[in-house]
Amino acid sequence: MDHFLALDIGGTKFGGGVVSERGDVISYIASPTPKGASDSELWEITKRVLHDAAVKADIHKFSSVGIGCGGPMDLDRGLVSPLNIPGWRDFPLTKSIQDEFGLEAYLNNDGKAITLGEGLFGAGKNVRNFMAMVVSTGIGGGIILDGRLLNGRLGNAGHIGHVNVEPNGNICSCGARGCLEAQASGLNISRYYGQDPRQATDDIKVLCGEYVGRGVASAASLLDLDLIVVGGSVALGFGDIFFRAAQKELSNRAKLNFSSSAKIAPVELGEHGPIIGAATVAISSQRGLF
Amino acid sequence: MDHFLALDIGGTKFGGGVVSERGDVISYIASPTPKGASDSELWEITKRVLHDAAVKADIHKFSSVGIGCGGPMDLDRGLVSPLNIPGWRDFPLTKSIQDEFGLEAYLNNDGKAITLGEGLFGAGKNVRNFMAMVVSTGIGGGIILDGRLLNGRLGNAGHIGHVNVEPNGNICSCGARGCLEAQASGLNISRYYGQDPRQATDDIKVLCGEYVGRGVASAASLLDLDLIVVGGSVALGFGDIFFRAAQKELSNRAKLNFSSSAKIAPVELGEHGPIIGAATVAISSQRGLF
Repeated sequence: MDHFLALDIGGTKFGGGVVSERGDVISYIASPTPKGASDSELWEITKRVLHDAAVKADIHKFSSVGIGCGGPMDLDRGLVSPLNIPGWRDFPLTKSIQDEFGLEAYLNNDGKAITLGEGLFGAGKNVRNFMAMVVSTGIGGGIILDGRLLNGRLGNAGHIGHVNVEPNGNICSCGARGCLEAQASGLNISRYYGQDPRQATDDIKVLCGEYVGRGVASAASLLDLDLIVVGGSVALGFGDIFFRAAQKELSNRAKLNFSSSAKIAPVELGEHGPIIGAATVAISSQRGLF
Repeated sequence: MDHFLALDIGGTKFGGGVVSERGDVISYIASPTPKGASDSELWEITKRVLHDAAVKADIHKFSSVGIGCGGPMDLDRGLVSPLNIPGWRDFPLTKSIQDEFGLEAYLNNDGKAITLGEGLFGAGKNVRNFMAMVVSTGIGGGIILDGRLLNGRLGNAGHIGHVNVEPNGNICSCGARGCLEAQASGLNISRYYGQDPRQATDDIKVLCGEYVGRGVASAASLLDLDLIVVGGSVALGFGDIFFRAAQKELSNRAKLNFSSSAKIAPVELGEHGPIIGAATVAISSQRGLF
């Protein structure tokens, strides 16, 4: 059985793990993302979560390292500049990991990593066309179409968070108005509706579900896909009322013969999705999948 | 020099042509799409435009036949059911052509055919990520991403006409509200704004350009693409004022680091785009392009 080191880097936490080739999480270590940390402090945390995960798993041989990281990034050169981690700008994450651990390292955007994980082990298993997305502090995602992970010009395909859902809506962190992320992400629920997402009212849960359903409907029509798996702390925390509202809006907006069957479903890998996804970046690259 | 028979089937006209492997149109014959015609009458017109195009070109040897046809269709089985041609429902167009002409025939959606044509001979030449779209009686398109034509689950990827651009907008022919097609297609300009698109006021040209720019912005963000080529009788007829409004709205809505450079440009193949595109369906299939 092959094992992979996995690294999930986001604005809330750094996660390190050991994941088997079957998608089982053998160990997992998380550390909060420090605010205002320097690049060397961030690198020390990165090394620590990976070393600690390896020790905890008591496994000493790894095939390679898979990395899921918040964007943007320069995929070809392995440089990361996560929007929510100002200490890293063009940080050479791939090379640093390779040098430290003596293993090949594979990097991708965290939304695309989750999509790969769901595609190999979760709700997208054996499905050639689907989108996976995360409704959390921000909103991101990835798309597998015709059995392949979409990259796009610079590797950012899957950015469902910046599909317009309300032309005169809230100003988004990107500077545009009415992006899905501006209307329904955790950060913007706090900012614009004055509610902590963890204690949101049913009205807010329904409203956010509707916006997600609307954005997803545009994607389903544009790309001829009928399965959208949704995860992330906000979506999963909001639960059924959110998912029902999202499905209703999707069904009202996607009425073409090929899109009218489109379904929203929760991710299957749940809270482990990001670390399994990170491992799958390596697994799928090494095995030529997607 | 290889030559291809090309067939472009739309709600307005049936076009037959002979196109060289370099994308030169050697001959072209068009016949208006009859209203209320039976399947056999439609088939007679199909045979006639292809035979007449071959005679006019005075070419007797063809590599194969390429077909661009209005959707929906069952690509795998070669059956067409064009929305605007009620006489054909699950008509076996690919097989009928193959039997009649003794040549291999290759079928795709008309929007995807135009995209292939622009990708091989036009504005998308040597571009690995772009969308092509047509703003005409309806609005359709196709997407080349990572150097490949996107198909999606049933082959309909590229349906930019049903991206939502106005949540409380006009009812679309698909049944949803505020699709790009409902807000900016030729048919709906007549229906909802009471103007013949050929004599539209500047206000309408700007409005439609804005809607196109908004839909395109969502697609550019979702797919990480920065070139959108736009054709079709409405877009090309509206001209500069339309294209300027579309570009302005796109720039206002696509502000991510990877999408902020997105550009709208007119198609390069102009009115010959559909027949060259139809030929390219065959050329690209035979040569394993896209």
